[in-house]
Amino acid sequence: MLIQNTSNSLVDTLRQRRQKLASLIDFPVILWSGNDSPRNYPANVFPFRASSHFLYFAGLPLPNAVIRLEAGFLELFMDDPKPSSALWHGEMPRREEIAEKIGADVAKPMVELELSVEGAATIAVQDAGTWTQQSQLLDRLVLPQIQPAGIDLELAKAIVTVRLTHDEAALAELRKAAAVTVEAHKAGMAATTSAKIEAEVRAAMEAVIIAHNMTTSYNSIVTVHGEVLHNEQYHHSLQPGDLLLADVGAETEIGWAADVTRTWAISGKFSSTQRDIYDVVLAAHDACIAKIRAGVEYEDIHLLACTVIAEGLVDLGIFKGNAEELVEMDAHALFFPHGIGHLLGLDVHDMEDLGDLAGYEEKRERSDRFGLGYLRLNRPLRPGMLVTIEPGFYQVPAILNDANLRSKYHNLVNWERLSQFTDVRGIRIEDDVLVTTEGSEVLTAALPNQASAVEDLVGG
Amino acid sequence: MLIQNTSNSLVDTLRQRRQKLASLIDFPVILWSGNDSPRNYPANVFPFRASSHFLYFAGLPLPNAVIRLEAGFLELFMDDPKPSSALWHGEMPRREEIAEKIGADVAKPMVELELSVEGAATIAVQDAGTWTQQSQLLDRLVLPQIQPAGIDLELAKAIVTVRLTHDEAALAELRKAAAVTVEAHKAGMAATTSAKIEAEVRAAMEAVIIAHNMTTSYNSIVTVHGEVLHNEQYHHSLQPGDLLLADVGAETEIGWAADVTRTWAISGKFSSTQRDIYDVVLAAHDACIAKIRAGVEYEDIHLLACTVIAEGLVDLGIFKGNAEELVEMDAHALFFPHGIGHLLGLDVHDMEDLGDLAGYEEKRERSDRFGLGYLRLNRPLRPGMLVTIEPGFYQVPAILNDANLRSKYHNLVNWERLSQFTDVRGIRIEDDVLVTTEGSEVLTAALPNQASAVEDLVGG
Repeated sequence: MLIQNTSNSLVDTLRQRRQKLASLIDFPVILWSGNDSPRNYPANVFPFRASSHFLYFAGLPLPNAVIRLEAGFLELFMDDPKPSSALWHGEMPRREEIAEKIGADVAKPMVELELSVEGAATIAVQDAGTWTQQSQLLDRLVLPQIQPAGIDLELAKAIVTVRLTHDEAALAELRKAAAVTVEAHKAGMAATTSAKIEAEVRAAMEAVIIAHNMTTSYNSIVTVHGEVLHNEQYHHSLQPGDLLLADVGAETEIGWAADVTRTWAISGKFSSTQRDIYDVVLAAHDACIAKIRAGVEYEDIHLLACTVIAEGLVDLGIFKGNAEELVEMDAHALFFPHGIGHLLGLDVHDMEDLGDLAGYEEKRERSDRFGLGYLRLNRPLRPGMLVTIEPGFYQVPAILNDANLRSKYHNLVNWERLSQFTDVRGIRIEDDVLVTTEGSEVLTAALPNQASAVEDLVGG
Repeated sequence: MLIQNTSNSLVDTLRQRRQKLASLIDFPVILWSGNDSPRNYPANVFPFRASSHFLYFAGLPLPNAVIRLEAGFLELFMDDPKPSSALWHGEMPRREEIAEKIGADVAKPMVELELSVEGAATIAVQDAGTWTQQSQLLDRLVLPQIQPAGIDLELAKAIVTVRLTHDEAALAELRKAAAVTVEAHKAGMAATTSAKIEAEVRAAMEAVIIAHNMTTSYNSIVTVHGEVLHNEQYHHSLQPGDLLLADVGAETEIGWAADVTRTWAISGKFSSTQRDIYDVVLAAHDACIAKIRAGVEYEDIHLLACTVIAEGLVDLGIFKGNAEELVEMDAHALFFPHGIGHLLGLDVHDMEDLGDLAGYEEKRERSDRFGLGYLRLNRPLRPGMLVTIEPGFYQVPAILNDANLRSKYHNLVNWERLSQFTDVRGIRIEDDVLVTTEGSEVLTAALPNQASAVEDLVGG
């Protein structure tokens, strides 16, 4: 449990957040922090991660704690550690001490929570022990798999409104996560030419994150098979002609995330075909970031990436035809089958526990178009939103060998020309971009993404 | 999912294990592998860990798979990956392919499992999604928090009998885990003098484990506050006069664990008081290992450690009186309040999901003595058992400041003499020891534990 980095400014920030929420709803709210999830037996647990909603309003990763908010009034419910726990876990801060740190008006033992649940809304946490308790106390089914309804839905929408744009305290944490992530990627690049398998590069990257007393915000992707979008294998050997795709992000001690991808050549130097495609992806990345500013629709950023990629592939002779028309036909999704990015905050896909409530503007729904269905964010951008921009190019066998897709797009692709690019299985370039009134700020800008600059960092 | 490291010898090993189990029971057995546990939202999961019982008999960490065993006949139940999953997770091995690798006689889709559940025993897995499914299909409450009963209890006892001693394939994995853990500790020692906080040493250690494509078998303890037995904080700064206690172990890709502790001086060199206590703990460690052989009671090993520690503390003038009498009065537990060790295998506390069924010989129960209650293993040792030996000395404020304990033991401790040892907050030395007919083999012997050898590894 982290309690050392607290200050009056934390209390002020938390009060402001709770006040904002109070201005949007007129019912009490109870938020659970959650508890440990067991790994292979009950006492061997995964590292504790507090619920993001709890973290947002309570600020500290307290296990098994509850806050109740009503009209700006904050009650903290948690039990003081048992005397015997001091042997195993040391002297822990007491309830009253924590209450002061987070600006709670009252601190009570957990047993009193049941007296204060009436009419309260909540959000399901992820661990079974806690959502069972939530369901019992509130006397209705509260489950992470069930979309919230009634006042829980109203609460979810209000929380989305508050969390959608970041305050200064959040940005300070997000910048810390970004800075450590930048260092992790540099370490991964520097470790590559002497590494034999993917796992060794991953180790160099995660060591930077662990050394800063942070954790990864999601399971790292460090792979020579970038065409597998969520590849979590690390045993492949590193071959000189291959690319390495690393999607690795840090999370600060109080839960704020970064999410960065770079792709580099294992030998240090891109082949000419790799460089050609890399520059297409980078052009899409740069065009998107140049277009970001408050008021712009994120879907238009996505479509811009699609168009720039299609254009680039036309120029390389891989696509035939006109970029705009290719995108209208979703042909880009043959090679860029995911969305251009997502919200980033306490969660790497921020508030994805609420389904599309955060990602999608009210009354909008996921498209069933091949080229749009995976878009996780569809809203007009607002100052203070943090989004990822992560265009890519992949040769996914499951797509390119799909008989239906292949026949549908057969005449739009120069398959023979494409066969010259077999050493490009997957490239992605991803940065974390803060929306401002005037434009944007790339929080991860300290990590180079120009092909030659990346080559310099890898060396070899 | 790992499928590359399989061979005919794996199939033979798995068949032998299943045959042993079949010889002990006369009812069918269904074992679930389990599924992912969500972290902050359903799609952001903790790294998958298959149930240890499944791993023991099926050999591969397959998510969401089930095996049914009856009289040596093995059925595998799992679904082939959906076509759409190839985009995100790549081409996965198909059911039939996996069935062959693990020596299954039949492979069926999951939907057919419900036709084969009658009269079957099981063991609860840890993730809620799976134990819900177990409970539904078997039509009884199967929960990790509930001790097994009826045929489930019979199964648990049979599994304990089979898993209590390790076969050659298991030992090969356990040796791999031990070897990587040894390297991790050496890396941690080498990183200490240039590190500023605990997290940097932890990073150096875990990087070795990650680079070998392994994971930690439990949350690492790397702390200047060794007196907190399960300390999972890593933010403290490293001060030259302090000790660093590191309890870190690797787990192989198919789940076999190591568990090693070393304590070293942050400056590289122990103070004379630190060295004095270190040598007492090491004497206990060495005496225990010298005594290990088949037939010896593990409780006697524990009591030997207590006695050697008490003797050492008498010699140092900290305890007054006679070592045997001090141990009879549990005075040793003032400074050595935990057990001498535990079983080690697929779980770092092997089979602790079954409570004390594995650790305690039938008809034995935990003692309520202050000096014995935390002993996790109480059986006569048998060839092929792997145990930890981990004596320690700690100055735990919660114990030493406890008014009852302090008055009870007041005349047995020279408190003034003790006050000269304030720079020894916690020391533990832990190795993994295989019981043989003739004696024992220390799997982690490649990691020095003599004070001067540890000083050499730290340097400085």
